[in-house]
Amino acid sequence: MEEADVMITDRTSPTPQVDAALPALFLSLLVLIVALVSPGLLMAQEALPSWNDGKSKQAIVDFVTRATTTGGADYIVPEDRIAVFDNDGTLWTEQPVYFQFEFIADRIRALAPEHPEWNEKEPYKSLLAGDLKSVAAGGEKSLVELGMATHAGMTTDEFAAIVKDWFATARHPKAGKPYDEMTFLPMRELLDYLRANGFKTYIVSGGGVEFMRVITEKAYGIPPEQVIGSTIATQYAVVDDIPVLNRLPKIDFIDDGPGKPSGINKFIGRRPVFAAGNSDGDYEMLRWVTSTKSPTFALIVHHTDAAREYAYDRQSSVGKLDKALNEAERRNWLVVDMKNDWKTIYAGGP
Amino acid sequence: MEEADVMITDRTSPTPQVDAALPALFLSLLVLIVALVSPGLLMAQEALPSWNDGKSKQAIVDFVTRATTTGGADYIVPEDRIAVFDNDGTLWTEQPVYFQFEFIADRIRALAPEHPEWNEKEPYKSLLAGDLKSVAAGGEKSLVELGMATHAGMTTDEFAAIVKDWFATARHPKAGKPYDEMTFLPMRELLDYLRANGFKTYIVSGGGVEFMRVITEKAYGIPPEQVIGSTIATQYAVVDDIPVLNRLPKIDFIDDGPGKPSGINKFIGRRPVFAAGNSDGDYEMLRWVTSTKSPTFALIVHHTDAAREYAYDRQSSVGKLDKALNEAERRNWLVVDMKNDWKTIYAGGP
Repeated sequence: MEEADVMITDRTSPTPQVDAALPALFLSLLVLIVALVSPGLLMAQEALPSWNDGKSKQAIVDFVTRATTTGGADYIVPEDRIAVFDNDGTLWTEQPVYFQFEFIADRIRALAPEHPEWNEKEPYKSLLAGDLKSVAAGGEKSLVELGMATHAGMTTDEFAAIVKDWFATARHPKAGKPYDEMTFLPMRELLDYLRANGFKTYIVSGGGVEFMRVITEKAYGIPPEQVIGSTIATQYAVVDDIPVLNRLPKIDFIDDGPGKPSGINKFIGRRPVFAAGNSDGDYEMLRWVTSTKSPTFALIVHHTDAAREYAYDRQSSVGKLDKALNEAERRNWLVVDMKNDWKTIYAGGP
Repeated sequence: MEEADVMITDRTSPTPQVDAALPALFLSLLVLIVALVSPGLLMAQEALPSWNDGKSKQAIVDFVTRATTTGGADYIVPEDRIAVFDNDGTLWTEQPVYFQFEFIADRIRALAPEHPEWNEKEPYKSLLAGDLKSVAAGGEKSLVELGMATHAGMTTDEFAAIVKDWFATARHPKAGKPYDEMTFLPMRELLDYLRANGFKTYIVSGGGVEFMRVITEKAYGIPPEQVIGSTIATQYAVVDDIPVLNRLPKIDFIDDGPGKPSGINKFIGRRPVFAAGNSDGDYEMLRWVTSTKSPTFALIVHHTDAAREYAYDRQSSVGKLDKALNEAERRNWLVVDMKNDWKTIYAGGP
């Protein structure tokens, strides 16, 4: 709409010559219309510039070309072009620990002065002492307790402000960069490429939905309503005649592993045709998306680049990739080799 | 995209005259571009044809005009143009009982031969005897039991097929029409009008999300991912190497009353600017949407037409409208008078 406004109000354009220039003018207007209406058509040649030429890039471009070729056997109508992406390890780095865990740790440290009892109480005591191994040894119960202590007890608006402030100042321990700059450039290009071809892109992550939504628009061009994640319960209340939603220390939904197909079904209500993940936590999502007779595509980001990012798979405590890797070939899932398939890892290098 | 394709391949157009016709050609191309890119601009004059001229129609058109006037004080950027609509009683009739309850009753009758025990067991016994008063007397517990007996115990795909079959054959007891033809034409025009002006339209209903999604695209032009409703838990399972989602007899979320703001927050993740409801079950949603300093709009469909639809409000057991009606004026919510504001109730009359 803005482009059209600009065109109409751009009265400084030279007056067209009334003669042989007409066919050229006519043609250029048509090109402009096509450019306005379907940007995807013009960018096919320059798609995925950070991907090395090879079978991975080719497989993606082939699928998208077939999906958008009207009349072709593998044509997918635009409303069914739904693509789902895991976040941690698929769209941005997840090492040495999930960024949301760094947020939890930072918040516990920030809140500690108000909670002197934490100095004597696990898992707070270990976390405050920097002893993450002891925290991890406490298992899911410890993590849930830390999560609730940092994610509940405030309104939704207050929580969004806390997360926003955190992203503004926190830095990745190895790269020294803000976390929202730790996104993978080739994956952002893939999101753009899919959208330019009529796909609706979603995040489907085990991360907290209200944590991610603060940055997904900026980081990936994905609006809040296309972010699916784990949720805690909220409760409506009225304070001074103003309604608020209070975040309760109660898990509502875990969007991980077998929860991902449930989350997709609950939030989207139809089956995506494209899925990207990087760990066994995405296994069920990849199965769910690719177990149909109609054309689908799935890929696994395989972390193979110890120099530019991290190299890990079957033995990793974060982002373990074992079962999905074993089955990738027979299920026709593309395994993307970060080291060899990607020219660049992060925007701004390396 | 299709329109552009048609243009380009339409080689039967007369060759333009190279002379005084040029300005006219140039202008008509510009008009065409505008028509392709922003259909809303051309339809303002004919918006809401089933609404009588008067303050209700004027209030809606005024809000939408202000919201879309670039540079105006009440301009709303396109990504924030989110509109939420209750379903039962707001977009279609909800009397004599919610349509989903008719579905439950029909399903209980259809399944009864497989459940001889139901003849002796409440609330099944009363329902099968047509004694809805006794069923209602059992309260929420009875309704939940009937709901679970008919909504759980199958896969999501199987449930969608059951609902689809039901809509194909069931008829409204008074009107004799299929339920998906019991939608209000003026509200469908309102949905179209908002969408033509860049609003994203959502349903936010107490009804079951997987019940509604079967028909919302056809009935309202609203895709599954823009339908928010009550949910039951689903569980991923693999049968013969094919993943399925089983519907469990366990309520996951009730999207009614104070649940509606929570549902909006969970599914959309930002605050809508337009809300429509018809009962006290929408009260908290209307509060949530209109309690900001930025421009918002809320309306209540008031059922005042006993001849063409139904007339009810404060005393009704279905769709009770009392508190929201009391507060409408002071909260600046538009109360739409169905009898006087709407020329037509249903497509196909009356």
